[in-house]
Amino acid sequence: MNCRKSFRPAWSEAPPPRGSYRSIFKFGDPAGFKHPSDKWYAMLKEALGMTDRDFVVKQAEGRAAVDLRRPPRLTAQQVAALVAVVGEENIATDEFTRTRYAYGKTTEEMMELSHGVVREIADLVIHPRHKEDVRRIVGYCQSERIPIYVFSGGSSVTLGLRPVRGGVTLVMSTHLNRFLELNEYNQTARVQPGIFGPAYEDALNRGPEHFRAARRYTGGHFPQSFEYSTVGGWVLTLGSGQASTYYGDAADLVVSQEYVTPAGDFKTLDFPATATGPKVADLMKGSEGAFGILVEVTLRVYRYMPANRRHFSFMFPSWQAAVEASREIAQGEFGRPAVYRISDPEETDRGLKLYGIPRLVDRFLQKRGFDPMARCLCLGSIEGERDYTRLVKRKIRRVARHFGAVYLGAYGSRKWARTRYREPYMREDLNDFGITIDTLEAAVTWDRLMELHRGVRAYIKGRARTICMTHASHFYPQGTNLYFIFIGRFDSTEDYRVFQAGIIDRIQAQGGSLSHHHGIGRLLAPWIENHLGREQMAVLRAVKQHFDPHQIMNPGGQLGLDLDDQEKRMP
Amino acid sequence: MNCRKSFRPAWSEAPPPRGSYRSIFKFGDPAGFKHPSDKWYAMLKEALGMTDRDFVVKQAEGRAAVDLRRPPRLTAQQVAALVAVVGEENIATDEFTRTRYAYGKTTEEMMELSHGVVREIADLVIHPRHKEDVRRIVGYCQSERIPIYVFSGGSSVTLGLRPVRGGVTLVMSTHLNRFLELNEYNQTARVQPGIFGPAYEDALNRGPEHFRAARRYTGGHFPQSFEYSTVGGWVLTLGSGQASTYYGDAADLVVSQEYVTPAGDFKTLDFPATATGPKVADLMKGSEGAFGILVEVTLRVYRYMPANRRHFSFMFPSWQAAVEASREIAQGEFGRPAVYRISDPEETDRGLKLYGIPRLVDRFLQKRGFDPMARCLCLGSIEGERDYTRLVKRKIRRVARHFGAVYLGAYGSRKWARTRYREPYMREDLNDFGITIDTLEAAVTWDRLMELHRGVRAYIKGRARTICMTHASHFYPQGTNLYFIFIGRFDSTEDYRVFQAGIIDRIQAQGGSLSHHHGIGRLLAPWIENHLGREQMAVLRAVKQHFDPHQIMNPGGQLGLDLDDQEKRMP
Repeated sequence: MNCRKSFRPAWSEAPPPRGSYRSIFKFGDPAGFKHPSDKWYAMLKEALGMTDRDFVVKQAEGRAAVDLRRPPRLTAQQVAALVAVVGEENIATDEFTRTRYAYGKTTEEMMELSHGVVREIADLVIHPRHKEDVRRIVGYCQSERIPIYVFSGGSSVTLGLRPVRGGVTLVMSTHLNRFLELNEYNQTARVQPGIFGPAYEDALNRGPEHFRAARRYTGGHFPQSFEYSTVGGWVLTLGSGQASTYYGDAADLVVSQEYVTPAGDFKTLDFPATATGPKVADLMKGSEGAFGILVEVTLRVYRYMPANRRHFSFMFPSWQAAVEASREIAQGEFGRPAVYRISDPEETDRGLKLYGIPRLVDRFLQKRGFDPMARCLCLGSIEGERDYTRLVKRKIRRVARHFGAVYLGAYGSRKWARTRYREPYMREDLNDFGITIDTLEAAVTWDRLMELHRGVRAYIKGRARTICMTHASHFYPQGTNLYFIFIGRFDSTEDYRVFQAGIIDRIQAQGGSLSHHHGIGRLLAPWIENHLGREQMAVLRAVKQHFDPHQIMNPGGQLGLDLDDQEKRMP
Repeated sequence: MNCRKSFRPAWSEAPPPRGSYRSIFKFGDPAGFKHPSDKWYAMLKEALGMTDRDFVVKQAEGRAAVDLRRPPRLTAQQVAALVAVVGEENIATDEFTRTRYAYGKTTEEMMELSHGVVREIADLVIHPRHKEDVRRIVGYCQSERIPIYVFSGGSSVTLGLRPVRGGVTLVMSTHLNRFLELNEYNQTARVQPGIFGPAYEDALNRGPEHFRAARRYTGGHFPQSFEYSTVGGWVLTLGSGQASTYYGDAADLVVSQEYVTPAGDFKTLDFPATATGPKVADLMKGSEGAFGILVEVTLRVYRYMPANRRHFSFMFPSWQAAVEASREIAQGEFGRPAVYRISDPEETDRGLKLYGIPRLVDRFLQKRGFDPMARCLCLGSIEGERDYTRLVKRKIRRVARHFGAVYLGAYGSRKWARTRYREPYMREDLNDFGITIDTLEAAVTWDRLMELHRGVRAYIKGRARTICMTHASHFYPQGTNLYFIFIGRFDSTEDYRVFQAGIIDRIQAQGGSLSHHHGIGRLLAPWIENHLGREQMAVLRAVKQHFDPHQIMNPGGQLGLDLDDQEKRMP
């Protein structure tokens, strides 16, 4: 075997076998792959201290068929009652289906599944056909004390879908995925929660063809998981899209919501603003399945004007300069970009190497003092009315120049936009050779940003041979979000878990939020009480008690609502 | 007595006697007056079918001294315990003080007080010095089951301050009115809740002088009550300022809040956005004193750049055209004006008569088809960066022209801005002669706006000799707020109440919200359950029960949380 220059690992090219563990944890399209490029491969070897030899034999790939021997624990009568609601064809009791819908895309889920380790699964998987089904299921499960979990897009990276107490998992994306109404007058879209990002956005973009609308619209919400997440998931986990700096976060997009809960069903009102007391509508956002089930949602939509979109990219001489310029842009009162990102020096340098920078450009940059491991890449785009996007771009260029940046044109941003949903595809390739890539993120105010960045990096880089690339995205006048991508080799899932917990501890200690847009789920649940404080947790538990007195809605750790004291991570 | 042309009613010019009922209900500065102009006077006579004779003898003016003989019902021990907390000098037991702090500026409060009719008052008025005082008072009142009411600016128009169950009223604006910190880096201001609008705004505007700040800032919040309302009140009643179309409503301005509640104290976190579950922070906004007491609040602030402000005014040929243009402006994605208002035909015509329009201009307008009782005035202003305000003005002009408007220059808007806080001063003058002026407002989506306007107007104008002037202000892409100003003569407070209830019924029936920015208080409380639905009210009651198990926080109808079924207005 020739392991020299020409060696390239045998990245998996085959779709995972049907019914296999791998088919559950593989990201995205089963037949879709994006392997590490040769440059990525070289970078990984160098940074992680690996050689071609380490990429010869694959580790556990999870290609075996799911085989558990865990019969459902519901009674025949209970199963029959649920079959009576939705019909035989909308219920599954087989182990593979029950396992498939018990998992999201959390890294430790992949690590365990690739070894055939399966945690709790539901006893039954149900595909409700409409909200009346949901109502009847919740009513029945309430009377029988059967736990209910909800699966929609399945892109959770926080163990948010794990059916810790068994029971049933409702799959919302199978039937409850329709676009119900485009109200052009109010610029709102009413949809079922299980509609996926692309179907939602496509229907809006093609408003004239789909709805005989006068215009085209956009939802303005493009999370990394866009292709494999649903509108309901965005709302219930408080997601944030890559264009949130202009369009707002998922919570900001919601006009009204309809819920089925054990304490009764309701639809919130659709006024653009009200002074009618505390807003229950807001309280439901981010409830992660613990209060009730979202069965319909109305969202703000925006005029879709791609012809007016303007891209930009800059190189800043330092992280400090990039941050200061970004703050000025966020606070400048001249409008806002839609996408706006700044990469820290490590991400910038690795990015330039991985995605290519012409040698001439690099020489030019270095001559002007934009040094490796100091310089920072910024890219983004502006949306809206034509003259508005022109103005905002002009203003951003002026601010960037003031902070010493050099303009690099639109190319970098366009390229990023084209490939932005593909990055997650690499994680299985890396996992096959024992390399873990994962991310954590935290909102932070401007005055704590540098410290948070320094502190978390110090922790991650304190571990030998670990990559840490950071960017800030999602900008607000008061601060931003830091997104940490780390890559390393871990001896075991437990080894990884300990390392990850250390990052979360450090984020907390340096004044970052526990999550900006991933949600809490079960992964971050142990930290939540320390983060929010006992008093706010007590409020959430009181609300939980009201909606769900028998603890059937997503029980077992979600949001930290029902953790024992020893399960909580308190300082 | 000569009642011809030269007759002018003897509008009250003297500040109300100290200790009088009038000193309680008079709006604003005791020595400040803005009498109806001669044009106003002529208009009132004509529209209400009155003659000079009706303006000769004043009706009940409430100039007598408050005289109640209602001794406080707290025990000597209880009073002593509270004195021990705040000191003798911060407690009042006299009837006048107890009455003064039991009242806001609700119209029916004025009507009753002018006749010497006093409803419930607190047993004790307390001026806490700091949050520690508040903590100790809440703790003590909790143990003794003493009701707690909170008074801050006192501008409530919803009976929000009425101490229905006696107990104590805490006055927040006496001591808890300090500006604690300007964080220029994050663009946030931390203040005590009792700081009044002008003190808050002035400190921000003069940032360099007050805080050695590098820039000047604005809070961006200018409700009609600006001069006599406090930051805490804005947050707790979900207020909205006249520049909200750009800066957002009070709820949008809040970054973090600190509360003292019977169930414990907490401070919410100050991240610009998070995905850490349902937001208790949002639930506290609009809680109107029923959950706990706000003791500190951090708000977003904005760069203050008055030199860049651009005013505009237009005349539209019709209400329909004005509404359509406004929708286009709100949805156009080219930035937003700060102040933006459109007046309906009745308000436009009365306004032109009252505030003057050069005869030449009027002739020009009518020649071009801008007819009385059809044409609609639009005015507003744009704030922000210099080129941004230029762009937004250009775009607004283009949209307005497209919808048939003629541009009337900046003058109208400038004049409105100068006098905007003075209008409420007229209400006592009118009340002196048995004329009632009041307002109700409702948020509405675009698709229900015309119907709501038509329906509510039909009801109000169905009453003989009643003026109804309506404008839309506070614009959102999804809708706006309709603000109804009505003027009429009523036989009694009860007569007025019945009429007012009819308007509220009609607002509900036509799809308006129960309130856009006045709040609920006790005035609108009977409607709230029908408006929000039983299920959402049950959630609010569960939260109430958590925070305040002994019902000591603003009990007796506030927000409709503790109404009996027969007190609820259900259809």
